Amino acid sequence: MIQTPYLLFLGDAPDQLAAKVAQGIKDWRPENAVGQFRLPGCKATVGLTDMTLAEAQAAGAKTLVIGVANRGGVISQAWKEVLLEALAMGYDLASGLHNLLSEEEDLVAAAAEHGRDLHDVRIPSVDYPIASGVKRTGKRVLAVGTDCSVGKMYTALALDAAMQARGMKSTFRATGQTGILIIGHGVPLDAVVADFMAGSIEYLTPDNDPDHWDVIEGQGSLHHISYSGVTLALVHGGQPDALIICHEPTRSHMRGLPDYKVPSMQAIRDVALSLARVGNPDCVVVGAAVNTQHMGKEEALAYLERVEKEMGLPAVDPFRFGAERLAEALEAI
Amino acid sequence: MIQTPYLLFLGDAPDQLAAKVAQGIKDWRPENAVGQFRLPGCKATVGLTDMTLAEAQAAGAKTLVIGVANRGGVISQAWKEVLLEALAMGYDLASGLHNLLSEEEDLVAAAAEHGRDLHDVRIPSVDYPIASGVKRTGKRVLAVGTDCSVGKMYTALALDAAMQARGMKSTFRATGQTGILIIGHGVPLDAVVADFMAGSIEYLTPDNDPDHWDVIEGQGSLHHISYSGVTLALVHGGQPDALIICHEPTRSHMRGLPDYKVPSMQAIRDVALSLARVGNPDCVVVGAAVNTQHMGKEEALAYLERVEKEMGLPAVDPFRFGAERLAEALEAI
Repeated sequence: MIQTPYLLFLGDAPDQLAAKVAQGIKDWRPENAVGQFRLPGCKATVGLTDMTLAEAQAAGAKTLVIGVANRGGVISQAWKEVLLEALAMGYDLASGLHNLLSEEEDLVAAAAEHGRDLHDVRIPSVDYPIASGVKRTGKRVLAVGTDCSVGKMYTALALDAAMQARGMKSTFRATGQTGILIIGHGVPLDAVVADFMAGSIEYLTPDNDPDHWDVIEGQGSLHHISYSGVTLALVHGGQPDALIICHEPTRSHMRGLPDYKVPSMQAIRDVALSLARVGNPDCVVVGAAVNTQHMGKEEALAYLERVEKEMGLPAVDPFRFGAERLAEALEAI
Repeated sequence: MIQTPYLLFLGDAPDQLAAKVAQGIKDWRPENAVGQFRLPGCKATVGLTDMTLAEAQAAGAKTLVIGVANRGGVISQAWKEVLLEALAMGYDLASGLHNLLSEEEDLVAAAAEHGRDLHDVRIPSVDYPIASGVKRTGKRVLAVGTDCSVGKMYTALALDAAMQARGMKSTFRATGQTGILIIGHGVPLDAVVADFMAGSIEYLTPDNDPDHWDVIEGQGSLHHISYSGVTLALVHGGQPDALIICHEPTRSHMRGLPDYKVPSMQAIRDVALSLARVGNPDCVVVGAAVNTQHMGKEEALAYLERVEKEMGLPAVDPFRFGAERLAEALEAI
């Protein structure tokens, strides 16, 4: 559990895209960030007030979150000075970088000296159990995709927001590094040891109120050669009552796999539902979430209409046009 | 790569079952073991000559393999004395125990002093890549099961032996601790980090001669809630040309999951084949391997005949009655 609120460290981000973790926090949990911290030459902003470490601390910030990708996998000297000063002032640090804070000797020493925590959300901090498959109370919905990076996290966050707006009980459950930094906790599933993957998702989505929904962030795709095992652990460990099929229609091939075509939403629906019913025979597919960011508005709306007709399910772009109809479909279960 | 031949350490095994790793080595790679080493009170034997460390070394043994499960997850003092003496004499040690040799300070110190290797096959010793999905040369057959522990390893080993007997080119590829100790190398898939599971299987089964078969040991089941993700990584990372469906007909529920019924062989055939064809569109199911150890001979033969008729495929108990018909089916591809 990472302490909130945060000060978002944008460092010397070379462009806006490099700051996508900070942007995710600003988009989905603005109440978790008091401001942003930028170094000279920073080319990104998430539109929050620029603050010094002291100003942010006065505004209540507890953790300095690295909201930016670093260049070449090295934590630079310019970053180091800020991070060390933050630790000395009483900040915890949190990062989703591949190179870990806990592998930087000077940061480890400073954290120990000042009694602060270094949160590397790239790797698990818990010994997860082996999945038991025992039926849990409460309800769960899982986003499954035709490919990686088609908008499963944004779908889950938008759905969670729409459910809360309707007065439904829901909790977004993060399974990737960005999602974990956005809400401050979760399971970094891609870094969990194989035997414990499904168990980590059971741990993440425990017994709950009968009318409470865990909205589980998906990962990978059942048809993505590299990561399909991770996806199946979500389908079985998550014990979903409902699935949402996520898709990005303009892709020419699977992400990172030039020889592989993206499967149809129907193909993913069929295999995901059949496997999900092993763990929960009552599981249903409730809707489609299409990432239309590379389409014009008319084209997007026409595409959604066609998907809706072909699949006989509500089809929305939850980030662009809202996730209310998916929330409605879940409420009807 | 563990150096062969071995001396098999049976320790103070309380019963025959505790020595199943040693038994597997004796059954499948007798040429890899010069003898067995037993402590006073040992209740197991694998039928090899009892030898002292010195006798086995004179017979060529290079590695002392712990072929027995330990009690309570602790390496006892009685074991320690033998292991330390073996290191001092120039033996490497190999173990599939959950508690690692490399976590025992005295063993680590002795190995360093004498320049010997400690092989803990429970955990990976390689940084595996992320799977690329690129088509590889050579052929691959994968054993997939309706459940865990239904005989996938024995099926693969028996098939490999039958293929070699027919003069086919084949290599057994171990994906579990026992299999790794039997042949001296492999991937401990259940201990690989999620993102690298499929990549570890690509690494295990690289490009090969067009007429060479990798016979890949299966793990788990696509319908086993706890481990299905591991199984799917084999189906996708293994890029199989052929699948063999493995089953144990007398089980009342899935192993470790009292609330879950064992699926039919047909259900596993359908889901495994459809997912395997994502990675290799030419994949086919060539046969069924039934573990009939809990059935009388007549009952077993009648059961196999029925499976053969229902599935339209050769159905054998490869360990009890031979794997020749499966090898034949692969040769016909």
